[in-house]
Amino acid sequence: MWLRDCWYVIAWDHEVPAASDPAIFTRTVLSEPIVVYRKEDGGLVAMEDRCCHRHAPLSKGRKEGDCIRCGYHGLKFDPQGACVEAPGIPIIPAKARVKTYPVVIKNKWVFVWMGEQEKADHSLLPANGWCDDPEWRYLPGYMRYEVPWLLIADNLLDFSHLSYVHEKTLGGSPRIALAVPDITPLEGPGPEGLRIVRKVPDVPPSSLHKKVRTFDGNVDRWFNYDFVLPGTLLMYSGGRPSEDVDGDMRRAVQLTSCQTLTPETDTSTHYFFQNAHQSTDGDDSVTQAIYQALVDAFHEDVDMISAQFRTIQLDPARPMLPLAIDAGVVRFRRLLERKLAAERAGPARQAA
Amino acid sequence: MWLRDCWYVIAWDHEVPAASDPAIFTRTVLSEPIVVYRKEDGGLVAMEDRCCHRHAPLSKGRKEGDCIRCGYHGLKFDPQGACVEAPGIPIIPAKARVKTYPVVIKNKWVFVWMGEQEKADHSLLPANGWCDDPEWRYLPGYMRYEVPWLLIADNLLDFSHLSYVHEKTLGGSPRIALAVPDITPLEGPGPEGLRIVRKVPDVPPSSLHKKVRTFDGNVDRWFNYDFVLPGTLLMYSGGRPSEDVDGDMRRAVQLTSCQTLTPETDTSTHYFFQNAHQSTDGDDSVTQAIYQALVDAFHEDVDMISAQFRTIQLDPARPMLPLAIDAGVVRFRRLLERKLAAERAGPARQAA
Amino acid sequence: MWLRDCWYVIAWDHEVPAASDPAIFTRTVLSEPIVVYRKEDGGLVAMEDRCCHRHAPLSKGRKEGDCIRCGYHGLKFDPQGACVEAPGIPIIPAKARVKTYPVVIKNKWVFVWMGEQEKADHSLLPANGWCDDPEWRYLPGYMRYEVPWLLIADNLLDFSHLSYVHEKTLGGSPRIALAVPDITPLEGPGPEGLRIVRKVPDVPPSSLHKKVRTFDGNVDRWFNYDFVLPGTLLMYSGGRPSEDVDGDMRRAVQLTSCQTLTPETDTSTHYFFQNAHQSTDGDDSVTQAIYQALVDAFHEDVDMISAQFRTIQLDPARPMLPLAIDAGVVRFRRLLERKLAAERAGPARQAA
Repeated sequence: MWLRDCWYVIAWDHEVPAASDPAIFTRTVLSEPIVVYRKEDGGLVAMEDRCCHRHAPLSKGRKEGDCIRCGYHGLKFDPQGACVEAPGIPIIPAKARVKTYPVVIKNKWVFVWMGEQEKADHSLLPANGWCDDPEWRYLPGYMRYEVPWLLIADNLLDFSHLSYVHEKTLGGSPRIALAVPDITPLEGPGPEGLRIVRKVPDVPPSSLHKKVRTFDGNVDRWFNYDFVLPGTLLMYSGGRPSEDVDGDMRRAVQLTSCQTLTPETDTSTHYFFQNAHQSTDGDDSVTQAIYQALVDAFHEDVDMISAQFRTIQLDPARPMLPLAIDAGVVRFRRLLERKLAAERAGPARQAA
Repeated sequence: MWLRDCWYVIAWDHEVPAASDPAIFTRTVLSEPIVVYRKEDGGLVAMEDRCCHRHAPLSKGRKEGDCIRCGYHGLKFDPQGACVEAPGIPIIPAKARVKTYPVVIKNKWVFVWMGEQEKADHSLLPANGWCDDPEWRYLPGYMRYEVPWLLIADNLLDFSHLSYVHEKTLGGSPRIALAVPDITPLEGPGPEGLRIVRKVPDVPPSSLHKKVRTFDGNVDRWFNYDFVLPGTLLMYSGGRPSEDVDGDMRRAVQLTSCQTLTPETDTSTHYFFQNAHQSTDGDDSVTQAIYQALVDAFHEDVDMISAQFRTIQLDPARPMLPLAIDAGVVRFRRLLERKLAAERAGPARQAA
Repeated sequence: MWLRDCWYVIAWDHEVPAASDPAIFTRTVLSEPIVVYRKEDGGLVAMEDRCCHRHAPLSKGRKEGDCIRCGYHGLKFDPQGACVEAPGIPIIPAKARVKTYPVVIKNKWVFVWMGEQEKADHSLLPANGWCDDPEWRYLPGYMRYEVPWLLIADNLLDFSHLSYVHEKTLGGSPRIALAVPDITPLEGPGPEGLRIVRKVPDVPPSSLHKKVRTFDGNVDRWFNYDFVLPGTLLMYSGGRPSEDVDGDMRRAVQLTSCQTLTPETDTSTHYFFQNAHQSTDGDDSVTQAIYQALVDAFHEDVDMISAQFRTIQLDPARPMLPLAIDAGVVRFRRLLERKLAAERAGPARQAA
């Protein structure tokens, strides 16, 4: 089950072609194929990629001004999803409509609202300001996983895996796993979620830190992040020479990261991510090096989580064993269950 | 559900090897694998490609005269499907039989009857005479689709798609979609179906026409076809300079086409087709050019219908929206439903 | 359904790396992924390849002495499957255990017991002594089939297929299929099964025989084998010039073979095999030639049985037709059903 009354990232801003470009962007979210295109005034349209007539994908058709025409039998839809032309049909039935989605760009991420249109609530957009802040530099990343999104969320909710999955990349020390994070609920405004703060003193700098600065000795590391519904991680992390006095950030490496999960189908997931360094800390080559180090580390996650999923599929009913380190995982899943139950109950029942 | 009491094309005549050729032809129809081979007298045998013993495919065995021997344990079957030799078995049980199918060649198409043998009715064979008429020249075509057969039948029952799917090939004008076809039932003799007549005045000649003749201006086009059970299209089409007086066919391009759909499985389909020009209209190079133009256009259909099927599979229960242009589609599906219901009821119940 | 209270071969001895080798061997048996590794004292450990925590495969982790550490969150398990370290967790719950399996090496085969541990019974190991006897030489073989294991067992239980599937390799004469084998039950001690003796007089020598010796004329061949639960063939076979007097083995080729089937999943199977010649009969080149001839012949089986399985899948409910030649097949399946029923009933019910 997926939460519907929330915003999912469907694309990076730059992935959606210009209005003048004939290419049509399409991506599947919660098993619904969706085209996203730009109107001539720059506004965005998100529309189901399925003609209402015989379910041909509209992305096989063409844009005509602000409209889109199906490439099978030529039905033409306006940005509100209404059929405005149907070749060979004198009177177009009112039911000839394609579903549209509330769509918004915020800080380079293109979000679609998958619930009822009238509930679309901008206050539920995540605070992904680091994606669009000149103080921070990054390269935008995208990967597609062939696993259910919750297995990746689990991964992001417990950074103890950095000591093992990323032993030679992001991790570098078993002490990350030994540090007990502080977890508190985020109850809004904004999307609900968890705030997770993990401090790891006196460990080697990570591969990302070393792209920015040379360290002679160990550093104190921190990973302070919010993980908010439906599946977005917003992190401030970094490292500072352990020998420096508290509060002295002159030799610190400070990083920010925005990462978000969007279910494609029951068994596949879109993953949008960036990891930014301070603009004052180096040039394009640093930005590129951090991006590449992150992608390399994420391939370690793909390898582990894909193997985990294959094992799970051999015996899907087998229960997992929750441990103390799963506090974040368990609390997030509980929050998700509560929100799912509320959606199932619906507003009428809630009022009753 | 498939109609069973009818003839399905399993092969072009030339696909079935000669009696002297050790190769064994096999193809799956309605999820039943079937071998077709020639006897020494030239007669055809169609037999399930499944040994009755342990279900090994007979096509992995060998022909021995008019018989076929299984390559697993050596059981040998005569053209009636009776086991006539079973190595190591003194008395062959009467149940040791493989199912055979009524099989007939008519105008280069090899048909199998998939219903009860005693019902096999030659009057239900389609009138595919253009496949074997010296007045017409063509190259035989075959494609395999990874989609349910009905999606391809829908495509053939509504030529409005020529304006869009085949915009740059067979179509060339939105006016094909604007023309309202005249549709009348075909109630026999012969297989039931629909007669669909679509006249399209004053449009550019199609890519096929231009393989045959040079046109200076627009043409009047026509597509007159019967679409008969279980899934055969028999078409007379062409184009004539719009400026020529009615009835003057001297500068017309006249084409005929026979196309037929045979379900392989629930999700795959055999497609046999040809498109012929008049023998007096050009040589081998024209025949080849028309064949290639048709194949190119059919790949446009494959691309669209495969994409449609992928979209449908994301939400198979979603209803389509019938429009006025679907008159042929809707009427053919209704005819099919009626015949399927009659088969399910059976002769006993019909009599009762 | 699979028999669980028995030993399945999971590997050849040489496939399991040395204790000092960081590589971890993993293979799936009865849909359970299992790692096998050597302790520093040389003893073997077989453990489910699934961390109890979040089901990551342990084979993605690393060996640490006699323990294995999960590569996801760092849980460490001892050879008994108990979690002895869990980073970040002060008190390890008693439930933090991974399933282990009784494991034993006997004559180069590594066996795991898939039933309840306390029932593990060494008397049920097969008599595969030919795998580890200096009088016999062979190369060890392994293949993976994409078919259910019973279809391969059926193949091994009826050598009449040698005349057809292996006509040009192991067979060479229809007389193998004509010979009626003598079949008697094996009721223990040792695993239950069937003893199948097939004598084939006056036929050409097989491809294997000819790797060992040159024959001028026909030979008398024999195939004497036990096929025991869960799926192991132990065979003494060979050929002797037909003209030689009874009992004169001076010009005989004598071969032994051990072959065993281990279900991987419902639709895939591990196949371990060897075919040995007498050490006094030739050198490495003979051993290699026999191995290659066997592998070539087994690819004929793969081709036939895979085709058979594809045909079965088109109509899985269709019953097969048992014939007299299936005596071995039918009796073995009956034995298997009886043992499966006994397992289902369980010891308590049996006592009641």
